[in-house]
Amino acid sequence: MITLYDDGEHKFVVFRDLTPKGMVQTNQAAIVHGSSSLLLDPGGRAVFHNLLAEISRVVPAPRLTYIFFSHQDPDVLGSAASWYVSVPGSRILLPAVWLRFLPHVFPPDVAIGERIVPIPDEGMKLDLGGCEVLFIPAHFLHSPGNFTVFDTRSKILFSGDIFASLPPPEEDGDFVEDLEKFTKYAEAFHRRYMASSKAIKLWLSRVAELDVEQIVPQHGPILRGRKVVAEALQWLSGLQCGLDLY
Amino acid sequence: MITLYDDGEHKFVVFRDLTPKGMVQTNQAAIVHGSSSLLLDPGGRAVFHNLLAEISRVVPAPRLTYIFFSHQDPDVLGSAASWYVSVPGSRILLPAVWLRFLPHVFPPDVAIGERIVPIPDEGMKLDLGGCEVLFIPAHFLHSPGNFTVFDTRSKILFSGDIFASLPPPEEDGDFVEDLEKFTKYAEAFHRRYMASSKAIKLWLSRVAELDVEQIVPQHGPILRGRKVVAEALQWLSGLQCGLDLY
Repeated sequence: MITLYDDGEHKFVVFRDLTPKGMVQTNQAAIVHGSSSLLLDPGGRAVFHNLLAEISRVVPAPRLTYIFFSHQDPDVLGSAASWYVSVPGSRILLPAVWLRFLPHVFPPDVAIGERIVPIPDEGMKLDLGGCEVLFIPAHFLHSPGNFTVFDTRSKILFSGDIFASLPPPEEDGDFVEDLEKFTKYAEAFHRRYMASSKAIKLWLSRVAELDVEQIVPQHGPILRGRKVVAEALQWLSGLQCGLDLY
Repeated sequence: MITLYDDGEHKFVVFRDLTPKGMVQTNQAAIVHGSSSLLLDPGGRAVFHNLLAEISRVVPAPRLTYIFFSHQDPDVLGSAASWYVSVPGSRILLPAVWLRFLPHVFPPDVAIGERIVPIPDEGMKLDLGGCEVLFIPAHFLHSPGNFTVFDTRSKILFSGDIFASLPPPEEDGDFVEDLEKFTKYAEAFHRRYMASSKAIKLWLSRVAELDVEQIVPQHGPILRGRKVVAEALQWLSGLQCGLDLY
């Protein structure tokens, strides 16, 4: 577990090493504010038991307040049914457009109740025990319904698949050291999976209004500090991808 | 089960009523050619047991040759682990770009072996016991990695989310009666989930080379006959969607 921010009342932590070998590495993140908490992209089925144990270092799992799924991918939503059943007091935050599809990852004997909070297409603000958390639309990057999350207290942006990179194990590290090394393992993924530069520019225009100090993607190293954050946003703004390339 | 084609040696069948109430209705389709078979988009976890029983009306489930997942959505891939484990003699066809993400819907004790056949981005032809089946790229409609399937013998196109419609139960039927009624329940979904008209035009240019008599989407009624197929393709060609609307 890496603690990216801790002021006594408010914490932002990241789990980077829970993914079994042989599958795409995923980061899991959590925001804890007083007695309120928010788990970000808990990941697939193979990560579930490890994360359930590890999360207790910052909040007892049965007391998790919110669990957020940025979009419908297997590495994001694969453990949804396990979390839903194991933490019955939690509420599930999910893009509204994926709401109807969620039951398909649940066993037939589990009925989805009133605990789901759909995030509307235009995004929303969450009051996390007095701290404002923003859900920022990132549609078509890559999922048609996708949100990034800005924690206004820690100034950390959880960016999901945006800025995801998949370095080989011997080149992996917790933090991006230099941007060239980062883009080497990020570019092919972004070019193939992100829908177009128009989608990127829409998202960048929203992020430009925020004061971002760190970026945590769902895969690969963390972007720490205003310099590397600015460089990464600049790199993304010039990227041609997806349908641009046809 | 609906039999859309049967010439003694070759069958194309669709299962339309296996989805439990309260979740998005999904169609499952199967092509059987002699002793070879191909199951198309088996669906979520709640459909699995019903389909395992029903498929035996055309092929014993343990003898299924291929199982195809068009993309990574929960209603497509949710039952992947169950099929993989339950039909150990089958091979899994999956877009290459989702290969690395598949383990995330598997329980931690299941290792993915040599049975996965990744479909390359440019598509491929499958020799199904002597019958040619085409995997046609439909990327960004909506998934960045997505394929539709053309059965050259029956001239049936399995279109996945393309031409999916979600009519209310009282308006649902097995076949599209008239196009206006169909688009009434298809248009909002296509406008919101499909990435852009450029993606649509790329796919339509590929489909124009085929001699399509019927279209089976993953949701809602079937498009039967050259007239309604032509009308539906025409409607799609004029649609503005996704990033076009920003």
